[in-house]
Amino acid sequence: MPDYQRPHFHIRHLKEVSSFKWLKLALDNPIEILIDHAHCERKAAGFAVQLMFRYPSDNDLAKVLSPIAREELEHFEKIFHFLSSRGYELKALKPPPYGNELSKNIQKDEPMRMLDSFLVAGLIEARSHERLALLALNSRDEQLKELYKSLLESEARHFGVYWNLANSRFNQIETSNRLNQLSHIEAKILSDMFSLPRVHS
Amino acid sequence: MPDYQRPHFHIRHLKEVSSFKWLKLALDNPIEILIDHAHCERKAAGFAVQLMFRYPSDNDLAKVLSPIAREELEHFEKIFHFLSSRGYELKALKPPPYGNELSKNIQKDEPMRMLDSFLVAGLIEARSHERLALLALNSRDEQLKELYKSLLESEARHFGVYWNLANSRFNQIETSNRLNQLSHIEAKILSDMFSLPRVHS
Repeated sequence: MPDYQRPHFHIRHLKEVSSFKWLKLALDNPIEILIDHAHCERKAAGFAVQLMFRYPSDNDLAKVLSPIAREELEHFEKIFHFLSSRGYELKALKPPPYGNELSKNIQKDEPMRMLDSFLVAGLIEARSHERLALLALNSRDEQLKELYKSLLESEARHFGVYWNLANSRFNQIETSNRLNQLSHIEAKILSDMFSLPRVHS
Repeated sequence: MPDYQRPHFHIRHLKEVSSFKWLKLALDNPIEILIDHAHCERKAAGFAVQLMFRYPSDNDLAKVLSPIAREELEHFEKIFHFLSSRGYELKALKPPPYGNELSKNIQKDEPMRMLDSFLVAGLIEARSHERLALLALNSRDEQLKELYKSLLESEARHFGVYWNLANSRFNQIETSNRLNQLSHIEAKILSDMFSLPRVHS
């Protein structure tokens, strides 16, 4: 395994750092990772819009989620243009089980459904942030490095937003315990690495 | 009925112009109309994102729909801020039957499902454009007039985009016949006016 670098920061709620095995797979398949990341960005936009629909009279929520959804779409377009500039196109990719498996843990009844939705969305953004940071650090393609860097900053802002929403609306100890549970589940899902190159393999 | 003005343009595919009865109801209830329009903008964003998910490998579609979705969200935020500046908030509103009734006409099988989706989305944008133009012309609240004007221009662009998508991908005669059918249905749905003040009452 090559001698990869890890970023200086550590996201407390990611119970396991991503493996170099994943990183190698991702670095060896940059275009597939980018296409997959484009799909992730639009899924994230879709999720934010979906939350706005689920709570149509929640003004504070709309205020923070609408700009997030817009930003995810901007990123989608940015990756799309990068791919086009290299002569590649979007295509449907078999998704890893990550998103579905994590979402199964969202409780069905309110208000826990809301809490879990915020925490799961935050975890996904946090993992994306960690992985984009690894790619930005270790990619040898300068344009790609720049692209990853430009994307990862807002992933960090986004997980902050989702976790702040959770903390501001729910009992802090309960929130912290639940995030702890979910983050163990998140790490466990990733421990069985998906065989294809994806952001969340 | 007061002496209202009609805009100079006429959208060929709206089989009936909106009634002054609707206009009076809307002008008499500006805040409810704005709240409803905010919901319409986010629904429109949601629909564009949904189409991107339905056809994940359709690059030309993604290229035009992602910026539309972003713009709808920008409008949502603009209305949201206008409402806040006047001390109002979003709230859930009982929707008129319009959107659901129209969507029932979208055929289930591809490629007709795609064609109908474009045509119905275009019709909704066209009707929004016509009604926002009526509100912009006849409202006596200068700030509200400006807000409506700023919104209606892109509704016009959007119906153009959806109908161009239809024309560029489907047989033009078939497309024109189908749009003709759907626009009669659209006018018929509105002929039985919904009793509450909504953009699509």
